[in-house]
Amino acid sequence: MPASAYESLCAHARETALLTSTAGLLQWDEETYLPPAGGAYRAEQCALLAGLIHQRQTDPRVGEWLDELESSGSTSDPRSDAAANVRGLRRDYDKKTKLPPKLVEELSRTASLGQQAWKEARQADDFTLFQPMLEKTIELKQQEAEAIGYEASPYDALLDDYEPGETAANVARVLGGLREQLAPLVEKIAAAEKRPDGRVLSRHYPVARQEAFGKRAAAAIGFDFDAGRLDVTAHPFCGGAGPRDVRITTRYDDHEFAGALFGTLHEAGHGLYEQGLPAGDYGLPLGEAVSLGIHESQSRMWENLVGRSQAFWRHFFAPFAEAFPDALAGVTEEAFYFAVNESKPSLIRTESDEATYNLHIIVRFELEQALLADDLLVADLPEAWNAKYREYLGIVPPNAADGVLQDVHWSAGLFGYFPTYTLGNLYASQFFDQAGSDLGDLEGQFSRGDFQPLRDWLRTNIHRDGRRYSAGQLVERVTGKPLSHEPLMAHLSTKYGRLYGFD
Amino acid sequence: MPASAYESLCAHARETALLTSTAGLLQWDEETYLPPAGGAYRAEQCALLAGLIHQRQTDPRVGEWLDELESSGSTSDPRSDAAANVRGLRRDYDKKTKLPPKLVEELSRTASLGQQAWKEARQADDFTLFQPMLEKTIELKQQEAEAIGYEASPYDALLDDYEPGETAANVARVLGGLREQLAPLVEKIAAAEKRPDGRVLSRHYPVARQEAFGKRAAAAIGFDFDAGRLDVTAHPFCGGAGPRDVRITTRYDDHEFAGALFGTLHEAGHGLYEQGLPAGDYGLPLGEAVSLGIHESQSRMWENLVGRSQAFWRHFFAPFAEAFPDALAGVTEEAFYFAVNESKPSLIRTESDEATYNLHIIVRFELEQALLADDLLVADLPEAWNAKYREYLGIVPPNAADGVLQDVHWSAGLFGYFPTYTLGNLYASQFFDQAGSDLGDLEGQFSRGDFQPLRDWLRTNIHRDGRRYSAGQLVERVTGKPLSHEPLMAHLSTKYGRLYGFD
Repeated sequence: MPASAYESLCAHARETALLTSTAGLLQWDEETYLPPAGGAYRAEQCALLAGLIHQRQTDPRVGEWLDELESSGSTSDPRSDAAANVRGLRRDYDKKTKLPPKLVEELSRTASLGQQAWKEARQADDFTLFQPMLEKTIELKQQEAEAIGYEASPYDALLDDYEPGETAANVARVLGGLREQLAPLVEKIAAAEKRPDGRVLSRHYPVARQEAFGKRAAAAIGFDFDAGRLDVTAHPFCGGAGPRDVRITTRYDDHEFAGALFGTLHEAGHGLYEQGLPAGDYGLPLGEAVSLGIHESQSRMWENLVGRSQAFWRHFFAPFAEAFPDALAGVTEEAFYFAVNESKPSLIRTESDEATYNLHIIVRFELEQALLADDLLVADLPEAWNAKYREYLGIVPPNAADGVLQDVHWSAGLFGYFPTYTLGNLYASQFFDQAGSDLGDLEGQFSRGDFQPLRDWLRTNIHRDGRRYSAGQLVERVTGKPLSHEPLMAHLSTKYGRLYGFD
Repeated sequence: MPASAYESLCAHARETALLTSTAGLLQWDEETYLPPAGGAYRAEQCALLAGLIHQRQTDPRVGEWLDELESSGSTSDPRSDAAANVRGLRRDYDKKTKLPPKLVEELSRTASLGQQAWKEARQADDFTLFQPMLEKTIELKQQEAEAIGYEASPYDALLDDYEPGETAANVARVLGGLREQLAPLVEKIAAAEKRPDGRVLSRHYPVARQEAFGKRAAAAIGFDFDAGRLDVTAHPFCGGAGPRDVRITTRYDDHEFAGALFGTLHEAGHGLYEQGLPAGDYGLPLGEAVSLGIHESQSRMWENLVGRSQAFWRHFFAPFAEAFPDALAGVTEEAFYFAVNESKPSLIRTESDEATYNLHIIVRFELEQALLADDLLVADLPEAWNAKYREYLGIVPPNAADGVLQDVHWSAGLFGYFPTYTLGNLYASQFFDQAGSDLGDLEGQFSRGDFQPLRDWLRTNIHRDGRRYSAGQLVERVTGKPLSHEPLMAHLSTKYGRLYGFD
């Protein structure tokens, strides 16, 4: 094996990671502590680093090293670490070099203008202000798909950016199966007579105590504050500046604790994944996350399957009620658990609940596929949007701002991104079922405040392999089955059936 | 004029500044918010950026652009902006390229090992543990001076790193003059019968209120929090990540407010200079500070000449006493003002006062010159140190840790750095006198809480020129006279004479 080519390739990738992680710090700082007047210069710093990073990622030497390694047969054992790294780096290199620079530039400019147009359109509640830029964006994304190449549909090429190796057909199969069963369940929940009292959620929860409790919960599930931080930003995220430097954020509202607390658990779930990746392989495929969907499976699992579970609150309700004695005076654990799991059809994706959320995603997934396949004209998008909301959720947005214009994604050119959210929920449930089989009484463990078995299971089965496997391979490997809508559907049916009294 | 060479040169310098300012953020973050486990990777990020920056600074194209500009006569008008930038960039380029890479490496390694040896020696209170590394350091600094070149003494070449264009002879002239008059003044203060009651300084000052008051004071003197921040670090500093992103730090002790408050004013003074430099020239000599001494003149002016003045407390004592009613119960403004200006010979430079501080510096300046000139053997340094402390301050360190081993500077190879502290005090007094002549009743203005006239004067006379002039030129230009010990000496004599009752 020509060690020098492999060593050069890895050293190059690791050095690039020093720059991408530095860019990560610039971005984190921009969201947290950058003085207002520093924004313009920060943009220049980010642009320079992005340029240096792109230069390194498309360095022809990378292609030469890869060619040499592939032709020498040194990566013929696909199970070897080297083969996994070479596969991953080959994919990245091809992705970065396949697009003509002119198209990259135009995509970037259009994304910037598109977001401006989208903001204006949303403010004016007028889709037509955004329509020309969206048409342009779709045209460019179609060109991008052609340049990247695909087997079955252009959508595959775009999906691959976020979910490497995944296909539109397979996602359609699973999301389709989910939709068929979820829409009736959501209808059933909406029609149930038993309802939670959601008013408890909007009582007064002093922010300092929310912060203390959120940190306690994040630490309890295993987020390592020696190798990470929790700060406040307008838009919560999980970022970082290195393998042992994972930075999550949340935002507080003293009359709404759920957003901050479940948001913290969500980002801590992302953070646990980042902290669980092999630090020694940072910058190499073996030290990187599999896909957005797998990343989201980790955040959704800790937020929903753990954080919104009855067992979690069996452990945490008492200290929570102690931290907020006024807000929770006279509230039972059962009533509280029901309140944090209220479900009902609503207009806004980001404010929806564990069950309805997925229908919001399915609407978007179906529409963006149709747009890219030229089966739907942009001019007809608002109507199609509203029709799908009526069909799947039983409600119709009263305006474009709360309907087709609510998300930034399409304006930024992010086509193929939406399904990763629901894929996250699907992976999460399938993994969680397997963890339950392997570990026994998860509920009992959570009730005792013991989250270590699950965390260790995730480390062993998901985190430590980096992106050695694709998401599909990983699911099959860990659970013995291909991805299916059934575990999530079973979870939601059981949970909401019990809560709303129709099980 | 060959615009393209000048434009290329400036664009190159500006782009380098994007990287140096990014490195500035990495360093600031390391001191403020970096999770403990992130330290090792941060060092790698800093090393990579340092390498990229060095590469750019020594890029042969810079030399070619400079040659072209200089030979074309396009910078023949020395007063033009272009000439100032070319002069500054020529200096920087020569500084960076004159040293053989092997010497640079050895200096860097020795600085790292030297600091380790110094720490051990200080902990063990045993100078001999540090002696070999200090001998090696001096040998290398002598080689560095030879490689850089100098007219009169090797010390000039090292001093030039911090105080461009300054000479040992001139500094010796001014510091010598100061010493002759300051040592007797310090003796007189020590012998005075009237003494302040310093106990008020160590009462209980809740940290949150110290922080609020410190921010208020920094804002009052003009530090722009829209273009800067104040955070907490173990070792206070003024750093930054861009032209409109100046980050100062302090540290709090709830039984000692003076360190944090005067430290904040000190760093805010540095910050005001950074915020006053022309943002549009960031990365070019016209957007950069003149020298360490001039930088220090700004911090010392706001810390001492303003912050420790009677007029400052005439304005701020009432709100201060209101913020700390328990600590200041029964304390008069006069007694408080005296307490924050207590002066007495002491062992530790960083804990000394406005008057004695300069004698600590003069000791070091004289000793480091003798070491570099081989007039003093490292083995004899502890004895020489103690002798000078006895002669100038009337005290003798009881051990090496509180004597010759107290400062990190020499172990890190920083020879020629110490005098810039006292040069800062000297420049500050000479500028301040001129500002007083130009602006009239500064005391009256401070008493009314009006610091804008002084700040604007500094902007106009010092900040906005960047490093168009050397420190020496600037002083002559602004005050009409070469640097002298007299303004500082007059200030200290008057101030302490009044306080201690011998004026």
